[in-house]
Amino acid sequence: MRTSIATVSLSGSLTEKLTAAARAGFDGVEIFENDLLTAVLTPEEVRARCADLGLTVDLYQPLRDIEAVPADLFARNLRRARHKFALMRRLGADTVLVCSSVDPAAVDDDALAAEQLRELADVADDFGIRVAYEALAWGRHVSTYDHAWRIVEAAAHPALGTCLDSFHILSRGSDPRGIEDIPGEKIFFLQLADAPLPAMDVLQWSRHHRCFPGQGGFDVAGLVRHVLRAGYTGPLSLEVFNDVVRQAEAGPAAVDARRSLLMLQEEVGAAEPPAPVVPTGFAFAELVTPDAQPLAGLLDALGFARAARHRSKPVDLWQQGEARILVNTGAAVRRDGTRLAAVGLESPDPAGAAARAEALLAPVLPRRRAPEDAPLDAVAAPDGTELFFCGAPGPDGGWRSDFADVAHTPAATAVRHIDHLALTQPWHHFDEAALFHRGVLGLLAGESVDVADPYGLLRSRAVGNADGSVRIALGVGAAPTDDTAHPQHIALATDDVVAAARRFRAAGGRLLPIPANYYEDLAARHEFADGELETYRDLGILYDRDDRGVLRHCYTLTVGRVFFEIVQRDGGHRGYGARDAPVRLAAQHTAGTAG
Amino acid sequence: MRTSIATVSLSGSLTEKLTAAARAGFDGVEIFENDLLTAVLTPEEVRARCADLGLTVDLYQPLRDIEAVPADLFARNLRRARHKFALMRRLGADTVLVCSSVDPAAVDDDALAAEQLRELADVADDFGIRVAYEALAWGRHVSTYDHAWRIVEAAAHPALGTCLDSFHILSRGSDPRGIEDIPGEKIFFLQLADAPLPAMDVLQWSRHHRCFPGQGGFDVAGLVRHVLRAGYTGPLSLEVFNDVVRQAEAGPAAVDARRSLLMLQEEVGAAEPPAPVVPTGFAFAELVTPDAQPLAGLLDALGFARAARHRSKPVDLWQQGEARILVNTGAAVRRDGTRLAAVGLESPDPAGAAARAEALLAPVLPRRRAPEDAPLDAVAAPDGTELFFCGAPGPDGGWRSDFADVAHTPAATAVRHIDHLALTQPWHHFDEAALFHRGVLGLLAGESVDVADPYGLLRSRAVGNADGSVRIALGVGAAPTDDTAHPQHIALATDDVVAAARRFRAAGGRLLPIPANYYEDLAARHEFADGELETYRDLGILYDRDDRGVLRHCYTLTVGRVFFEIVQRDGGHRGYGARDAPVRLAAQHTAGTAG
Repeated sequence: MRTSIATVSLSGSLTEKLTAAARAGFDGVEIFENDLLTAVLTPEEVRARCADLGLTVDLYQPLRDIEAVPADLFARNLRRARHKFALMRRLGADTVLVCSSVDPAAVDDDALAAEQLRELADVADDFGIRVAYEALAWGRHVSTYDHAWRIVEAAAHPALGTCLDSFHILSRGSDPRGIEDIPGEKIFFLQLADAPLPAMDVLQWSRHHRCFPGQGGFDVAGLVRHVLRAGYTGPLSLEVFNDVVRQAEAGPAAVDARRSLLMLQEEVGAAEPPAPVVPTGFAFAELVTPDAQPLAGLLDALGFARAARHRSKPVDLWQQGEARILVNTGAAVRRDGTRLAAVGLESPDPAGAAARAEALLAPVLPRRRAPEDAPLDAVAAPDGTELFFCGAPGPDGGWRSDFADVAHTPAATAVRHIDHLALTQPWHHFDEAALFHRGVLGLLAGESVDVADPYGLLRSRAVGNADGSVRIALGVGAAPTDDTAHPQHIALATDDVVAAARRFRAAGGRLLPIPANYYEDLAARHEFADGELETYRDLGILYDRDDRGVLRHCYTLTVGRVFFEIVQRDGGHRGYGARDAPVRLAAQHTAGTAG
Repeated sequence: MRTSIATVSLSGSLTEKLTAAARAGFDGVEIFENDLLTAVLTPEEVRARCADLGLTVDLYQPLRDIEAVPADLFARNLRRARHKFALMRRLGADTVLVCSSVDPAAVDDDALAAEQLRELADVADDFGIRVAYEALAWGRHVSTYDHAWRIVEAAAHPALGTCLDSFHILSRGSDPRGIEDIPGEKIFFLQLADAPLPAMDVLQWSRHHRCFPGQGGFDVAGLVRHVLRAGYTGPLSLEVFNDVVRQAEAGPAAVDARRSLLMLQEEVGAAEPPAPVVPTGFAFAELVTPDAQPLAGLLDALGFARAARHRSKPVDLWQQGEARILVNTGAAVRRDGTRLAAVGLESPDPAGAAARAEALLAPVLPRRRAPEDAPLDAVAAPDGTELFFCGAPGPDGGWRSDFADVAHTPAATAVRHIDHLALTQPWHHFDEAALFHRGVLGLLAGESVDVADPYGLLRSRAVGNADGSVRIALGVGAAPTDDTAHPQHIALATDDVVAAARRFRAAGGRLLPIPANYYEDLAARHEFADGELETYRDLGILYDRDDRGVLRHCYTLTVGRVFFEIVQRDGGHRGYGARDAPVRLAAQHTAGTAG
């Protein structure tokens, strides 16, 4: 009996995965689509590598959201499938996994599902490929294996069979005896996984997943209001335990805890700290580095000009449009390498913002400055990043007056302003960080999303103001060892990412190379004008589209812990390219750093 | 409005928790019972420390499993409560939390619950204490706040009120508006926590918690049998993802994965590796150390004699009864400090055991030995521990013949044999380790239990043979940084732990000091003969009782990563003292190491 393993079940690059599977004695692999998209090997090279290692390519997976959809949508799905079937031939894979649809556009119509799957199998057959249809446990209309089999049976096409997955079957509590009624030759594939039972009872939920008010999904404030209306006069007491809090240092954890309670008290009207003063933009981002040269080269190629120098400190101001980057070579910070150390936030009321921050227990930073410097209020975020509250430049100067202009050639005009910053949080402070930015800065928090890195799962959560002029993506690695392993970045907004990328490259800059496989997937996914996709591939521009518009973006190589992104948003796209993040992360593991 | 935090919500020693709470500006604390039991401060000292820090002791928690029980059990519960009320007066706490019972002996009788809670409140009143009754979300008969309130209302005692906990209320989906109908003065306490929603849907379960077959709770083999009966001839393919696998090194993970599949194939009759050969006892435990002196002192005080020396290597054999400890000072292992490096397992068929291990992909170790040494089959466990399969000493010698006897005074007779070993697993290999010991050695695995350490939650899972002559407790820290932070230990079986402990101490050995508060809790929990408890307290002996008997045990200080436990089991007690583990762990953080 042959054995196989999905590449998604092992960590690392595709090459590392294949080598590990072969060494452990597996006969074959399922190639997971993302592992191919992020690989530097072509499909032909993957095929050859597998052959060298004695591995067969048993399955390519998955095709998603194919069946039971309106005709025009199905036509687009077939177009995408043809791209993938052609790819599979180059890869040497003869079976494709089709998961039952989760598309909101799918309808509950088994006859339509069978008809469209038969049509898909007909196309697959032309490529010598078999289609294995599997019920996802959370499929929109098809979520059990017997339901999937009834559709396959009705479709009655020799190139269409079913795929069974022990997780999807057993997690639903389905009776597996019915499997024996399926003809063996119509079971095209069997995927195996176990899982702990029960998934989560309320005791485990309580023991491992309590969190401080405002970090979870309960309406704790609503409950407290009822208790206060009942006439309760005792203390508000936190009883929280989870695996992170049990390990976190007690001092900072206690501060987080009390900040959460202060925000709760404010919400129920039991406390009135100074109102939040929402920042209105980025005044600057400050990089500290032991060696200004690699950053200077990068900023110069990006079109920035070294416009000014601090009057009393070794800090240069680089500017382009409204984007201002400070490069600080002060000796005190040399040991940490190149990193994003401080953020200047434009504030309509810096003193009020600082008072709010202090009332919510943000550590207020000493004003380490020369007597002639402009006063600047600053606090430390949970990850140690210094946040400066900067007023508009006025008669009294403001922070910009600490800098003396230097002669420079004018900056380019590709970059408009800072689009967003991405800061990696220490493992113990991720939930706290979102609460901090909401409470202290008055920003809005988005959903937390999982992002697959080749060496672990990351979480990312964006905070920002209402008009999007301040956006910070908070990220965290899957384990405490990752605290400083993942880079930070500064994303720069442009109106024309192609022009900006060309300009950067012409000036000697190097963009992060993106695997060719990514662009083949884009071709399957969307239609492009002649030459458009080739331009993106040539430059390493990533492309994401949602119902609000299009995001085009590319990345520089990394210096220390820092890299730059160039972002073009069209049609009101508000995202950060979460779909592209695994590609970027894998490419960064491959590329290493620029300096 | 005053704010408070439960000590369980912060990490570290009680002193660290109180300091952190005070510095963050909390007004008071709830003292969690385990934090007091593990503290070196007396209740009076805790009270004084809180006063110095400006903290009130707002709650002592919890009293569990009190109400709605038969009269004789309730009398014992009242006795326990009186102990705790007396303690609370010394602590300066005037409110106690009583959680709704989870005791299987509790009956579904609100009138009885009310009557017994009224009686409890009467006793509490004598001590100036108020009882706050709270519905646990997983209470046996009382699990909602309104139900708890109806019982409090029926009891109608001024010293009895209710405690509300946002987690218990909101996790049940109860409507919190009903809180407003409770008179405010009868709400004695309010505990707040948030939690993520939803607890766990099937998509999250799939994405974060799939595991290899045999590591979870699904009947994967049963499902595979159905698939094979259907006539399926394709590969068995693993599709597993979870947060650990995504981070684990690909090479070892692939080996684990295939071992899991081999065991599954064996279970369904699709593969026939050599049958498991279950070990019948511990031949030896081998410690490696850069400096034999501290271990020699410890073993000598424990009553071991240095009975023999290896003919070709710097290894001493220490023996007492059937317990054999090897101390290896070979230079190759010096850098890692003192640790448990190898285990000799008595095997009825060493060659067969090794063949089984090799078939299940256990790394077979090179036989690094002199030409005259006895052949010894060995494999590496996932944590790197070397497992030697040792035959009975026979005409051909066996492992013991590699050692030459040395002159020695006879060993003591307190220790009979090795009771069990406790090995800390690398974070990425915990589930794998249990599967390895089951599959490769044919041992049985117990349930996985959570153990609270002051600085994080540990997991522990025991594997052993049927008669208990081989028992290994596999432990893992809560995060990868803890890989080597937690000690390993060798537990030695004795018939009289008191005599063994006295002997050890008289010989100059130092036992781990156990806080006095632990013994106050024992006094509340059980009745003891005159002087018995004082003896345990004096020596640092821990005491656990279940329906199968009594466990008495004590610990030496730690040398490197290793300490010894002395264990007396009576009446068939099979446990490992999981209730005592948090006390031991906290005491070890306080005590540091012996050498």
